[in-house]
Amino acid sequence: MSETLPDLTESELAGIDAWWRANNYLTVGQIYLMANPLLREPLKPEHIKPRLLGHWGTSPGLAFVYAHVSRLIKHTGQDCLYITGPGHGGPALVGASYLEGTYTDAFPHITQDNDGLLTFFRQFSAPGGIPSHVSVTTPGSIHEGGELGYALIHAFGSVFDNPDLLTIAVVGDGEAETGPLEGSWKGISFLNPEHDGAVLPVLHLNGGKIAAPTVLSRKPPAEVRELLEGHGYDVIEVEGDDLPGMHHRFAAALQQAYAGIKQIQQQAREGEGFTERPRWPLIVLRSPKGWTGPDKVDGIQVQGTWRAHQVPLSGVKTNADHLAQLEAWLRSYRPEELFDDAGRPVDLVLSANPDKIASMSGTPYANGGLLTEPLDLPDFRELAVTVEQRATERIESTRKLGELMREAYRRNPHNFRLFCPDETNSNRLGAVFEASDRAWMESVTPDDVSLSPRGRVMEVLSEHNCHGWLEAYTLTGRHGLFATYEAFAMVSASQTIQHGKWLQEASHLPWRADVPSLNVLLSSTAWRNDHNGFSHQGPGMLQVVLNGGAQHSRIYLPPDANCLLSVADHCFRSHNYVNLIVQDKQPQPQWLSMTEAIDHCTRGASIWQWAGTEEDAGEPDIVMACAGDIPTLETVAAAEIIKAKLPDIRLRVVNVVDLMTLLRPKDHPHGMSELYFKELFTDNRDVVFAFHGYPGAIHQLVHGRPDADRFRVRGFIEQGTTTTPFDMVVRNRASRYHLVMDVLNNMRVTRRGSGDLMRFCEAQLARHESYIVEHLEDMPEVRDWKLGATV
Amino acid sequence: MSETLPDLTESELAGIDAWWRANNYLTVGQIYLMANPLLREPLKPEHIKPRLLGHWGTSPGLAFVYAHVSRLIKHTGQDCLYITGPGHGGPALVGASYLEGTYTDAFPHITQDNDGLLTFFRQFSAPGGIPSHVSVTTPGSIHEGGELGYALIHAFGSVFDNPDLLTIAVVGDGEAETGPLEGSWKGISFLNPEHDGAVLPVLHLNGGKIAAPTVLSRKPPAEVRELLEGHGYDVIEVEGDDLPGMHHRFAAALQQAYAGIKQIQQQAREGEGFTERPRWPLIVLRSPKGWTGPDKVDGIQVQGTWRAHQVPLSGVKTNADHLAQLEAWLRSYRPEELFDDAGRPVDLVLSANPDKIASMSGTPYANGGLLTEPLDLPDFRELAVTVEQRATERIESTRKLGELMREAYRRNPHNFRLFCPDETNSNRLGAVFEASDRAWMESVTPDDVSLSPRGRVMEVLSEHNCHGWLEAYTLTGRHGLFATYEAFAMVSASQTIQHGKWLQEASHLPWRADVPSLNVLLSSTAWRNDHNGFSHQGPGMLQVVLNGGAQHSRIYLPPDANCLLSVADHCFRSHNYVNLIVQDKQPQPQWLSMTEAIDHCTRGASIWQWAGTEEDAGEPDIVMACAGDIPTLETVAAAEIIKAKLPDIRLRVVNVVDLMTLLRPKDHPHGMSELYFKELFTDNRDVVFAFHGYPGAIHQLVHGRPDADRFRVRGFIEQGTTTTPFDMVVRNRASRYHLVMDVLNNMRVTRRGSGDLMRFCEAQLARHESYIVEHLEDMPEVRDWKLGATV
Repeated sequence: MSETLPDLTESELAGIDAWWRANNYLTVGQIYLMANPLLREPLKPEHIKPRLLGHWGTSPGLAFVYAHVSRLIKHTGQDCLYITGPGHGGPALVGASYLEGTYTDAFPHITQDNDGLLTFFRQFSAPGGIPSHVSVTTPGSIHEGGELGYALIHAFGSVFDNPDLLTIAVVGDGEAETGPLEGSWKGISFLNPEHDGAVLPVLHLNGGKIAAPTVLSRKPPAEVRELLEGHGYDVIEVEGDDLPGMHHRFAAALQQAYAGIKQIQQQAREGEGFTERPRWPLIVLRSPKGWTGPDKVDGIQVQGTWRAHQVPLSGVKTNADHLAQLEAWLRSYRPEELFDDAGRPVDLVLSANPDKIASMSGTPYANGGLLTEPLDLPDFRELAVTVEQRATERIESTRKLGELMREAYRRNPHNFRLFCPDETNSNRLGAVFEASDRAWMESVTPDDVSLSPRGRVMEVLSEHNCHGWLEAYTLTGRHGLFATYEAFAMVSASQTIQHGKWLQEASHLPWRADVPSLNVLLSSTAWRNDHNGFSHQGPGMLQVVLNGGAQHSRIYLPPDANCLLSVADHCFRSHNYVNLIVQDKQPQPQWLSMTEAIDHCTRGASIWQWAGTEEDAGEPDIVMACAGDIPTLETVAAAEIIKAKLPDIRLRVVNVVDLMTLLRPKDHPHGMSELYFKELFTDNRDVVFAFHGYPGAIHQLVHGRPDADRFRVRGFIEQGTTTTPFDMVVRNRASRYHLVMDVLNNMRVTRRGSGDLMRFCEAQLARHESYIVEHLEDMPEVRDWKLGATV
Repeated sequence: MSETLPDLTESELAGIDAWWRANNYLTVGQIYLMANPLLREPLKPEHIKPRLLGHWGTSPGLAFVYAHVSRLIKHTGQDCLYITGPGHGGPALVGASYLEGTYTDAFPHITQDNDGLLTFFRQFSAPGGIPSHVSVTTPGSIHEGGELGYALIHAFGSVFDNPDLLTIAVVGDGEAETGPLEGSWKGISFLNPEHDGAVLPVLHLNGGKIAAPTVLSRKPPAEVRELLEGHGYDVIEVEGDDLPGMHHRFAAALQQAYAGIKQIQQQAREGEGFTERPRWPLIVLRSPKGWTGPDKVDGIQVQGTWRAHQVPLSGVKTNADHLAQLEAWLRSYRPEELFDDAGRPVDLVLSANPDKIASMSGTPYANGGLLTEPLDLPDFRELAVTVEQRATERIESTRKLGELMREAYRRNPHNFRLFCPDETNSNRLGAVFEASDRAWMESVTPDDVSLSPRGRVMEVLSEHNCHGWLEAYTLTGRHGLFATYEAFAMVSASQTIQHGKWLQEASHLPWRADVPSLNVLLSSTAWRNDHNGFSHQGPGMLQVVLNGGAQHSRIYLPPDANCLLSVADHCFRSHNYVNLIVQDKQPQPQWLSMTEAIDHCTRGASIWQWAGTEEDAGEPDIVMACAGDIPTLETVAAAEIIKAKLPDIRLRVVNVVDLMTLLRPKDHPHGMSELYFKELFTDNRDVVFAFHGYPGAIHQLVHGRPDADRFRVRGFIEQGTTTTPFDMVVRNRASRYHLVMDVLNNMRVTRRGSGDLMRFCEAQLARHESYIVEHLEDMPEVRDWKLGATV
């Protein structure tokens, strides 16, 4: 093994070119052929698939880069991961895996012979087969190529704390138009060459997207260079379509880029350490879209234009000219030189492969569960809040999570990170800074705090970067948490959805090892962004995760610090989930001792007997349920009011911390049994439910439960502004007084005194209305309300 | 009026500086004071608000730029709009409006005198008052400053087709870290100096975000310049904190920028027309965060650091030193020179204001409804699909919408645009290209199609740009549509939510004129992205809009082309809504004549008697309901099967096109009356409901309706892959056979023959399962299924 990539020799060139031709042949075969896979007979319409799907345009370029990186691996032994930004070039990547033999390892029926090849062709973009995108089913992928924008983000996430890894990120010029991609070049401002690996972006300008040219492909090349240099990169350009010239020039570019990377790393690791952000190399590759494919079709230019994007010859089943052109195209790769009689790739082709385990389709970095080390966490009980009397003190619960993560940083110096858009302190998670600074490769001044190149807390004002970095960090086997303002979690909602889909699909693939969960904390929630106003008030993310697949979606609403610790410990130890934790950062009453909290969180939902008035025996008159910190506060307060004013009502209070327990067991693995559901909610008493999110979510969750219509839900109904915390619950008709009135309105028998209590509530709300106009502060009961019971 | 901005004179300087000091004073006053607004007596703790909220750091810089642009307006009469990227600098912008007198016009109780000033201070960030962000309540704003990333996007959207408008977009260095912002510099690749206005970005590098420095502020200045030049701009830099030097230098920068803009426009408009994308000017302003505020607090550097972000002196109510420092800070602006005895700004301050109507807080461009011209549309009936026999032909319904928009382009050459991420043709809307090319300021080659600088169809591979451009286009009074793949609508989901919040808040402000609705078409839907696979399959956006405020959210699921035309016509003519239209692009059966379609869409939901089997009189045995094109197909097909096999079942088919009609009238203005609900769904028969989105949405919608538990819903349950269209409905258990089985399972009386039918359905599904493994095509009934009844 060598530290540098030598010049390309003629014999290597022959191997690489054969491999590339073979890969291109496989791509065209996947798009078109359902029989006669190696053209052992003349091509006929019946060999052609009935429905032509797939993306030719980007594929030859992807395979070209791949082949050259494989050569780098063979020479240097470098651990490489390949991220395919133009993810619709799926056939090139599954083709690479097929040639490397890893595809057969993952899917044993796809053998490297005639039969296997035919199955390989037929499965592509076919029912029961594989998608046309680089996806979960593609060995070597940690990146779903459907939704564009995240290639570089995932690349950076993969190399944080992976010092031996080099991730090649091919960025398509279509993808390069998206906001998230443009915002991700700055990853190098957070990448430390000492303890992190390297990303080599290959910006592939091939000229077109689906139906038009791309901005970067038509910008003057000097401007593109300026832009990338402005992003901080050392730009290496390769352009053309001539062969073998392009092979030599790209090999030289890769040689130069790799030398640059090694020099940066060596200097930082062996020399004086990190001094300033290096200028990392970047390759701009300009090659025609649909390179080596049909130049013109029906007299119209195809190669080098958007027309090469998908299926350049569409009429092959009925148009003899198209069929002939397809055959000529396929034969231009000389398949008879590439595959032997048995259909196996010949040695010349195979000579371009690295060893399987070193290959980009076989690397364990792309199947990160294989590399996962369990997170070393302290006993979270040691961080417990002592609750001698319930709700006598207000504590910022998320501070406890900060302390837990501080310990995670200390015990797992290469295996855990927090990702947060500049809100770590704001979300009260600042204890982590006792263990690690923020990562920062730009200049540092004496006035800066907790900021240094060796820092490993990731703060960038970009939910897209934070979310995507964590995705790739976990898919390469490490642990972490993304913490964000609740409303702005919607900025990266699509990423949450796509990651959930990834996890769901991966669970069907036995060869994909379990990966750590994607943990998301929503703090600064809808109910307590009273000072920031309406734009900061929105519980949409909860609904997004709720509608994700039952298999991987988990939602927790811890009502206090001890519950948060219990939930967080569970989430950090879990695998393959999207765990959403929703809890505000403001001081809040503490309800449960640690023992109670663990019991409560284990059940997911339970009766808070101390909060209700029910007798030991018999059914309650009504159930008050709650999920979420603020709804819990309002519910317990409402119950207190009822206790004081109408003590003969048998009132039950149920708190839900694991939201999915409300679903039926057949709908979610956490769904509580019918028996336990009835134990909590009875099967016929009305339930007044105060909920953190949109009320409809509860109706959705309890559907199919006994008499689901009896659930009356209060929640966030998109009423917000700059106001007091208490006014937020009033505006959304979810205050303690509203809950009391709901109870009174839903009692089957009117109690003596309920009219008085109704009027009392109305008066309180009226008083509140005049109060907030007069004062600039909260209504006093929100701050002063206390509960005297001893735990 | 002059075409150029002259040099800054001393007397102008005095006015501008006084205005700026007054504005800064107002900002500090808003954050701190609840009494003694003009420091007519020594500052005391009781003058200080109990809760200190607001963002000081960015405000003086915002006011500084504003003051100089006002001077530009005074000299040139230029129409200017001001977009405040660092939107949390709200006090500076409401302060500007206050000084310009437009605030009093909008809020008559906030007068320009002592009482008004006090109220102005007290309302800031207070309950019942105004948010701390630039928002809907801020005169002059079309940009909510809460969620960062969209400043430049909104700026470009405002100037398309507004040739006389110059939008100044201040971009904060925090915001500049977001993906959407980084992706929006490329707006100039789509901006034609002939028929569009100009955007002048002012990148304000003040060094810090909430708790740390920003990437751009710490990058070497040469690299920042390179980056922006690489984005295509002509960079003008201003740096410092010296006074009056900064005034002179910024005035000179603005002079240069304005001259550059005028020259570009003149050349394009009067000279040879558009030749190549010009290098538009851009100003980089480096001024310290918290400029003119406390330099150090308690010995720690504040000015120029993140510590100046919010409230730099936090202990003023209890700490005498802080109080003294605040008083000195306030008095440093010399309020006694700025406001007269009555509390009115003195003439020197007022001298810096443009005329109200020309001022940036008074411009009608920022209250775009004032400028709205109704969209001139043809009679959509003329585009009707002739349906002689139902469902005998399959048509790509969205093509009809393309034709309607083609006419909109022709009749409204400056008033209508389509925004779409490179999918106009893919979504079958390509008829628009008969009326307009795609907008494109980069080079054009002979192989390009429908691409030119004069084009006005907006295609950029960025949902963020498309969505945000349309937002600003409508908020400045014009009309349009954003068309996107359903799954990827989630990329810009947060923008949809934030725009809805904007519309909701605007509806409470009498001075805000109605603006055209934001119309969103989701095509390439979850059910028909069978070839693209799981990443392209997700109906999340429907749920997002469903949970938006009832006041502004509208969701339509037209089942065929005529319904789409009727719905689209309605949406294009509407105001103040987010209209979501969900319909697939693939060929689909056509059900209704135009007359029927109009009647159906007007009702929002109705009985399709021809599809059911009920008698004229009497209640049905069961109701089959559907919303969405594919669910409609499956429902009608299921009904056909039942009709054929068990003709004595009285079956009713209800189709829902306006989803919100399912809500109760008290929950949504479109909610159907209880009477009509019972007319459609009875009040006790079971309802088998096939739905386009997540099933829970229907449970949420019908909650509170008579016996809502009787609704059995089939919908998208996150089962997807690359497969056939029919397999998609099978996987999600929403196929015609599943629906038939649901009907059978929910019949109160078992019918003779129902066992046979149940087994038939099971056999069909089993056959399907073996079928898709064997074939690469759809199951035949999906393609061949026909309905013979005549309309």
